[in-house]
Amino acid sequence: MSRIKNKTKIINDPIYGFIIIESPLILKIIDHPYFQRLRRISQTALTYLVYPGATHTRFHHALGAMHLTQKAIEILRRKGIEITWTEEEATLAAILLHDIGHGPFSHTLEHSLLPVRHEELSLFIMEKLNIEFEYALSTAIRIFRDQYPKRFLHQLVSGQLDMDRLDYLRRDSFYTGVHEGMVNSERLITMLHVHENELVIESKGIYSVEKFLIARRLMYWQVYLHKTVLSAEFLMQKIFERARQRYRGGYKIQAGRSLEALLRRDITIETLRNDPVWLSIFLSLDDTDIWTSIKQWYYDPDPVLSSLCIRLLDRNLLKIKLTDKEISHDYVSKLRRMVRTALALNNGEEEYLVFAGKVENKAYDQSQKSIKLLLSSGECIPIEEHPDFLRIEALTELKERNFICYPAIEGLLDGKSLNISPTI
Amino acid sequence: MSRIKNKTKIINDPIYGFIIIESPLILKIIDHPYFQRLRRISQTALTYLVYPGATHTRFHHALGAMHLTQKAIEILRRKGIEITWTEEEATLAAILLHDIGHGPFSHTLEHSLLPVRHEELSLFIMEKLNIEFEYALSTAIRIFRDQYPKRFLHQLVSGQLDMDRLDYLRRDSFYTGVHEGMVNSERLITMLHVHENELVIESKGIYSVEKFLIARRLMYWQVYLHKTVLSAEFLMQKIFERARQRYRGGYKIQAGRSLEALLRRDITIETLRNDPVWLSIFLSLDDTDIWTSIKQWYYDPDPVLSSLCIRLLDRNLLKIKLTDKEISHDYVSKLRRMVRTALALNNGEEEYLVFAGKVENKAYDQSQKSIKLLLSSGECIPIEEHPDFLRIEALTELKERNFICYPAIEGLLDGKSLNISPTI
Amino acid sequence: MSRIKNKTKIINDPIYGFIIIESPLILKIIDHPYFQRLRRISQTALTYLVYPGATHTRFHHALGAMHLTQKAIEILRRKGIEITWTEEEATLAAILLHDIGHGPFSHTLEHSLLPVRHEELSLFIMEKLNIEFEYALSTAIRIFRDQYPKRFLHQLVSGQLDMDRLDYLRRDSFYTGVHEGMVNSERLITMLHVHENELVIESKGIYSVEKFLIARRLMYWQVYLHKTVLSAEFLMQKIFERARQRYRGGYKIQAGRSLEALLRRDITIETLRNDPVWLSIFLSLDDTDIWTSIKQWYYDPDPVLSSLCIRLLDRNLLKIKLTDKEISHDYVSKLRRMVRTALALNNGEEEYLVFAGKVENKAYDQSQKSIKLLLSSGECIPIEEHPDFLRIEALTELKERNFICYPAIEGLLDGKSLNISPTI
Amino acid sequence: MSRIKNKTKIINDPIYGFIIIESPLILKIIDHPYFQRLRRISQTALTYLVYPGATHTRFHHALGAMHLTQKAIEILRRKGIEITWTEEEATLAAILLHDIGHGPFSHTLEHSLLPVRHEELSLFIMEKLNIEFEYALSTAIRIFRDQYPKRFLHQLVSGQLDMDRLDYLRRDSFYTGVHEGMVNSERLITMLHVHENELVIESKGIYSVEKFLIARRLMYWQVYLHKTVLSAEFLMQKIFERARQRYRGGYKIQAGRSLEALLRRDITIETLRNDPVWLSIFLSLDDTDIWTSIKQWYYDPDPVLSSLCIRLLDRNLLKIKLTDKEISHDYVSKLRRMVRTALALNNGEEEYLVFAGKVENKAYDQSQKSIKLLLSSGECIPIEEHPDFLRIEALTELKERNFICYPAIEGLLDGKSLNISPTI
Repeated sequence: MSRIKNKTKIINDPIYGFIIIESPLILKIIDHPYFQRLRRISQTALTYLVYPGATHTRFHHALGAMHLTQKAIEILRRKGIEITWTEEEATLAAILLHDIGHGPFSHTLEHSLLPVRHEELSLFIMEKLNIEFEYALSTAIRIFRDQYPKRFLHQLVSGQLDMDRLDYLRRDSFYTGVHEGMVNSERLITMLHVHENELVIESKGIYSVEKFLIARRLMYWQVYLHKTVLSAEFLMQKIFERARQRYRGGYKIQAGRSLEALLRRDITIETLRNDPVWLSIFLSLDDTDIWTSIKQWYYDPDPVLSSLCIRLLDRNLLKIKLTDKEISHDYVSKLRRMVRTALALNNGEEEYLVFAGKVENKAYDQSQKSIKLLLSSGECIPIEEHPDFLRIEALTELKERNFICYPAIEGLLDGKSLNISPTI
Repeated sequence: MSRIKNKTKIINDPIYGFIIIESPLILKIIDHPYFQRLRRISQTALTYLVYPGATHTRFHHALGAMHLTQKAIEILRRKGIEITWTEEEATLAAILLHDIGHGPFSHTLEHSLLPVRHEELSLFIMEKLNIEFEYALSTAIRIFRDQYPKRFLHQLVSGQLDMDRLDYLRRDSFYTGVHEGMVNSERLITMLHVHENELVIESKGIYSVEKFLIARRLMYWQVYLHKTVLSAEFLMQKIFERARQRYRGGYKIQAGRSLEALLRRDITIETLRNDPVWLSIFLSLDDTDIWTSIKQWYYDPDPVLSSLCIRLLDRNLLKIKLTDKEISHDYVSKLRRMVRTALALNNGEEEYLVFAGKVENKAYDQSQKSIKLLLSSGECIPIEEHPDFLRIEALTELKERNFICYPAIEGLLDGKSLNISPTI
Repeated sequence: MSRIKNKTKIINDPIYGFIIIESPLILKIIDHPYFQRLRRISQTALTYLVYPGATHTRFHHALGAMHLTQKAIEILRRKGIEITWTEEEATLAAILLHDIGHGPFSHTLEHSLLPVRHEELSLFIMEKLNIEFEYALSTAIRIFRDQYPKRFLHQLVSGQLDMDRLDYLRRDSFYTGVHEGMVNSERLITMLHVHENELVIESKGIYSVEKFLIARRLMYWQVYLHKTVLSAEFLMQKIFERARQRYRGGYKIQAGRSLEALLRRDITIETLRNDPVWLSIFLSLDDTDIWTSIKQWYYDPDPVLSSLCIRLLDRNLLKIKLTDKEISHDYVSKLRRMVRTALALNNGEEEYLVFAGKVENKAYDQSQKSIKLLLSSGECIPIEEHPDFLRIEALTELKERNFICYPAIEGLLDGKSLNISPTI
Repeated sequence: MSRIKNKTKIINDPIYGFIIIESPLILKIIDHPYFQRLRRISQTALTYLVYPGATHTRFHHALGAMHLTQKAIEILRRKGIEITWTEEEATLAAILLHDIGHGPFSHTLEHSLLPVRHEELSLFIMEKLNIEFEYALSTAIRIFRDQYPKRFLHQLVSGQLDMDRLDYLRRDSFYTGVHEGMVNSERLITMLHVHENELVIESKGIYSVEKFLIARRLMYWQVYLHKTVLSAEFLMQKIFERARQRYRGGYKIQAGRSLEALLRRDITIETLRNDPVWLSIFLSLDDTDIWTSIKQWYYDPDPVLSSLCIRLLDRNLLKIKLTDKEISHDYVSKLRRMVRTALALNNGEEEYLVFAGKVENKAYDQSQKSIKLLLSSGECIPIEEHPDFLRIEALTELKERNFICYPAIEGLLDGKSLNISPTI
C-alpha cells in the first residue's frame, strides 16, 4: 500500500493554508536549535505594543518565505524554466536561512548586542551549518551570495521583489490587521518569469507590482515607522546602551551569563571567526532573555537604567516628534539642559532621554537594480519606463524624516517651543 | 416578553456579514417593483465574461452602499455630529435610490435604450416614488440634489469619497477576485468627520485615502477598462445601434414589446414627463430581455445584426487595440475598406465592425471638490497639499487611451499594418 | 526566449485565487456554446431572493470543481499514486461536464421543461460532444460512468466526498454569506489517498470529514431548503405546470419558440436520441428565457397563469409550513375548497395555490458507499466505525419534512386551523 | 469644531477590524501593569510548537472578548432590552478581567506555580483593583460573581455560550489556521436575546449554535488536545515539578527571585490574603521568565532537571499514546522499570519520564445550564429538546481519553508491548 513519503511534513499556516516540506535537508535545518531559536524572536519587535496581533515570529516568516519560493519555482518550471531539484532545495535552504543571523528583537537591537550586520551574520552561520551538515549547503550559500550562474535564484531570495519581502508584507499586514499592506502574493508570483537569467515580471503584472510598492510604502508609515513603535524601540536601544556603559564603567548589573558577556565587550566578525564560543553565546539569546533582564533592571540601583526600564514596562514612553525640518544640535542641547534641570539628573544622564535622528522610508530604491517588465513582444524594460507606471519618483524618492524624543514634562515643552511646523 | 421589532430585516451579505434594516420606509422602497428590478441588472455588465465571479447585481450594491452609509452615520454621531433619525432615513433612502435610474446592462446600454443620463433618471424616478409614498422621500430628494443644509449628508451619497464608490470598489473586487482593488471601507469610515458642514477625513486616514485612490485606478485598468470587457461591451452597443437602425428603416425584428417601443423612437426627459407610460416601459426591462433578444437576433435575416449577435454569444469578439497614439480618421477609413472587401460586406456595414474611440481612467478628479483632511490641530487642508501624499498628479492626470476595434482576419491585419507602437 | 505556453489560460476565482487551464481539450470544452450557456444558468436557482449575493452560475461551479480535481490529482501523485496526463485530462473533462445536462434554473425546473434526469442528459451530451471532438472524450465518459479501471478517478467526480460537492458547498457558502457551510476544501484534499483502488481519507482527516458532513447538513436547512426559497421554487414549478396545461388545452400563450416547443410535448430520452433537434432546442434555453416569459405571462389572459407570475415577480409568495407531521389528503382538500371560495376561483385552479409534499435533507447516505478512513496502520475502515466519529445516525437519518403551501388570506387560515404543532 | 472624544481609543484587530474603547475606566484597566502583563502570556501555551501561527496572547483575547460583549449589548438594546451605560461598562470590565488571574503559560502551569484556580485568582485580583480604583469595579464584580439582578449580563461573561468562548474559538482558529474551528460570532451574537432574565438564542440561530458546539469539539481534538501539544505541556509541568522538588530537597537552582519564591513554598488563597507581597510576586511573572529559567536549567547539574529541559528546548518530546482503554498502574510500573534500566536512571527519576493520566473533551456540558432557544411563539426550550438539534448526546457525552507518556527508546517499546489497540 502506498503511504505518504515518510518525512513529508505539513505545517498549518493561517495565511497560505498549508506549508508542505518534502526535503530531509530542509527538515534538518528547521529542527536545528539555531533555527528553532527563531520561534522566540518576534518578527516585528515592539510593534505589538501598538498592534496587539503582531506577535508573529521570525520562525514563521522564514517558513512563509520558503513556501512562496517553492510556489515561484513551480510557476517558473511550468513556464519552461529549468530548475533542478537540487537547485530548488538549495534555494529553499537559502531563503529559510536568510534571517538566521537575527538576534533578539531583530533590527531594534541589531547593533546593541553584537555590532555585526545580520546579513553578514546569516552568512557566517550558514557556513558553520554547512560544515555541520557535511557541505549540503554549499549551493545554498552560492545562491545566497549571488555566485550561482542562475542568478534569478538569488533574486528570489534577495532583490526588489523577492519572496522575503512578499512574505513579510503579507504576514505583517495579516497579523497587525493593517489591511492596507495586503499584497496579492499569489498573483505576483504567477506573473514571474525569467529573461536573460534575471527574474522579471510579465507586463500584465504591472498593476500588481505597483500595488506591491504602494503597500510597502504604506506599511512603512503605518507600521514599521509608527511613532509609538519607534519611541518604544529607541527606548529599548537606550536601555542597552546604558547597560553596556555601566559594564564598561565597572559596575555589575544583574543579567544572564550570555547577555553579560556580550555587554562587556565589543564583538567583531573577526572575534566570531577566532573563537567559536561567541557565536554560541549570541545564539543562546532570544527575546525572552531581553524581557527578563529589563524586568530585573526595573529595580536596578542605577537610576538611569531603572527609569528607562520602568518607562518601557509601564509604557510611559518618551514623546516623539517626526518632522521634515532639520533638528539642530543646538536645539537638542538646549532641550537636554532643560530636561536635566527639570528632572534633577546627573550630568550626561539626559542623553538617554533626549535624542534626535533620522528615519527613512524607501519603497523602491532606484539605485538598486530595477524591477524588469517582460512585454508580450518578448522585450524587457525597467518598470519605471512603462507609460502606465505610477510616477516612480513618488515612490523612489528617499523619504527621510527627522525625529526627536524627549520626556513629557508638563509646562516645559510643547510643539511651539520646538519651533517645529505642526506635525500632521 | 420582548421581541425583535416587527419589521427588522436582516440580510446576509458575503462582504459585510449582515445588513440590518429597521426603517419601514426603507423596506417599502426595497419591496417596490422598480427596486426589485435591480435584482436582474448586473452591476458590472459583461465583465463576467472575463471574471466569471462578477455576477453581482445593482440590487446588492445598492443595499451595500446603504449599509456603509448607516455605519458612517453611526461613526459621525459618536463623534458628536448631530444627525436626526429622519435625516438618517432620508440619507439611506437617497443612497438606496441613487442607481434606480439604471437600465439593462447599466452604463453599457445607458445611451442605447433611453438616451437620458442615469442620474437624471434616478431623480425622476425618486420624484415619482415620492408621490406614490405620500411625500416620504422629500428630504431624501433634497439630500440627493445637494439642497439640504447639512451638506455632508449629500457628500455621503455623492462625492469624491462617497459610500457608493466605497461599496462598488469593494464589491467588484470581491466578486471578480481582483484583490488589488480591495478597499478597507471600515477603516476609511472610521476616519470620517465633519468640518464646517463638509465631510472630511481625519489626517491619520491619509494612507487609507491614498490606498483608496490607487485601488480605484487599478480597478479601472484591470476590470472596468479591461480590453476584452470593452470589446464585448462595444459589440453589445453596436447590436442595439443596428437594431435601432433597422427599426428606423422600417424593418421589423423580433423583440418584446417594451424593447421594440424604445427602439422605435428617441425618448427625452420631456417625453418621460409628458407620458407616464414611457417610464413603465423602460422599467419593465432588465438584463434578461436583452439576452433573450440577442439570442433571437442570432437568427435574424439581417446579416449585420445576426453576425454581431453570433459574435457576442459565441464569444468571437472583435480585436481591440489600446494605444496612447491618436488614431486618424484616414486610418479607420482605410481599415474599413479592407474589412468590407475581405468580408464582402454591403456598403456601410463595415462601420459596425471597425470603429475607434477613447476611454478614460480618472481616479481622482481635481476639477471636482478636493478630499479634505482634518489635521489634529483642527485645521483642514486639501489632501493634495499634505506633504505625505503620493504625488497627486500621477493619480489625477486624466489618463485617456485611444482604442480601435476590428475583426480578426487572417493575413490582413496585424500590429504592424496598424502602425501602432507595441501594445504593452 | 521562453514564453508561457501558448494556450495556458488563467481565470480569476474569488475563492481559490486562480484557476489554471493548460489542456487544449479542456479549453475547447469551455469554449463550446453548450458550456458557455452555463454562464446564464444560476447555480442556486431562486436562492438569491433570500441571499442576494447568490448570483453565481453553473459555469463558475464547473470550473471550480475542475480546479479542485486538479489539486486532488496533484496531491495523489505526490503520494505515489500513478495518474497519467491523459487520465488527468479525462477526469477534468468529466467533472467539467458533470452538470452540462442542467437546464434553466437547474433542479427547480428539472422536470418541468424536459422530464429527463440531468445526469442522464449530461451523459447524452457528453456522447454528442465526443463525436464532435473526434472521440477525445471517450476516457472521460468511461470515468463518468464508472467503467474505468482506476475507480478512484470516478469517485473524484461522483461520490460521498467528490470535488463537485466540495466546490458547491464552499461556493454556495461564499456567495450566500452563510459561513456555517464553509468547508476547508484544501485540508480535505490534502488528506485524500487511494487504497485498493478506492478514494479514501487519511485518518487524521476525520474531523474535517465530520465538519464537511455537518456543513452540508447546515447548508440544506439554511439555504437549499430555506422556506422562502422553497416557496418561490414551487411557485415557479406551478407556473410551468400551468403553462404546459394551457398548451395541451390548445391555448396559445406568448413564448419563445424553443420554450413553446418543449411545453407542447413530452420529451423522453428516446425523443432526444431519435431527433437531434430536440437537444439543440433544449440547449438554446437558459434562465433569461424563463424570466422573459414570466414577465410576459404577467399579462397573460389566463388568470391562473398571470396570478402565479404576478406573485413571483412581486414576491408575494405563498405561505409555506414545514412540519414533521403527516399532512392528510383530506386536509389539503379542505384547504383547497376554502381557498377556492375565498378567492372565487374556477374549479381546479386552487390546485396551483394549495399543495403539499415532502422535502428531504440527507447529509450522508449510508445506503451509498461509506467514506473510508485510512488508518496509520495501513488498514481501512468505514468512517462510521471510527470511535471518534460523531454519531453517524444523527447525520445519516433521512430527515424528511412535510410541507404545505397556500396563499395568505386574512382571517381564513392560521397555524391553529392547520392543527400543526408550532413550527419552530 | 467637533473632535473625537479625547480618550476614545481604536485598536486594530486582525479578526474584528477595530476594537473601539470609549470608557476611561476600561482604558485604566488596560493600562494597569497587571493587565499589560497579559501581553507576555500566550493564549495557547505551547500550541505554537505545532501551529507556528498561534503566538497570540491573553491580552489580545481579553480585548476581543470585550469587543464581542460590546456588540452583544448593542444587539440586545436594539431588541428592547434595557442595559444602562453603567451596566455596560461593568460588564465590559468583568469580561476584560475574567482571565487576569492567569499566570505564565495559563492552564499548563496553573497548578505548578501557584496552586489556586485561575478564576478564584481573577476574582481576588479584581477585588484588589477595586480598592485601587476607588470601588469603580463593584458592579463588575457582582456581575462576575453572578450576584447582579440582570443575570444575563453574567451569562455574557460566563456561560455555555459566553463571549469568552466565542472569542477564543475564533481567535485560536484564526491564529492556528485550523479553519474547522471558525465560528460565525457575528451571526450568533445577532441571534442573542433575553427571556426571563436569561440569555437565550432565537430559534433561527439553532444551526449556528450547533456549528459552535461542533467547532468547539473539533478545536479540542485538533488543537487543545493535540498529541504533540499535550506531550510538550506535560514535559513543562514535569520540569516545574522537578524544580520544586529540588528546592524542597534543599538544593539551590538558578532562577529569578519571584520564581524561586513560588517554588520554595505552597501558596494558598489564604497566603495571598494574608500577605500582599505574594500577589505581586506572582504577577511579576510571565512566559519570558519561564523560558529564561528553562534555558538556564538546560545546564543544571541535576541530570533529571537538565534532561527534561533539553528535551523541551530541543523538541525531543516524550512519545504519547492516547487510548480509550484503561492504563493499569501495573503497566505503568513495569514501563518505568524498563526505562530506568535502559537509561540507567536513579531510583524515582523515571517518574518524570513515564506517566499516565486522562484528558477530556467536553463541547457541551449538560450538567450545566442548557442553552435556551427562543421560539417565534415566545416560548423558550432547552436546545436539546428541539427536533432539529443534532443528537445532543454525541456532543455532550464526556469524551475522556487515557494517555501515557514515555521516552522513545529503540527496540524497547512499541505499540504491541503496550498492548494497546492501534491508535487511530
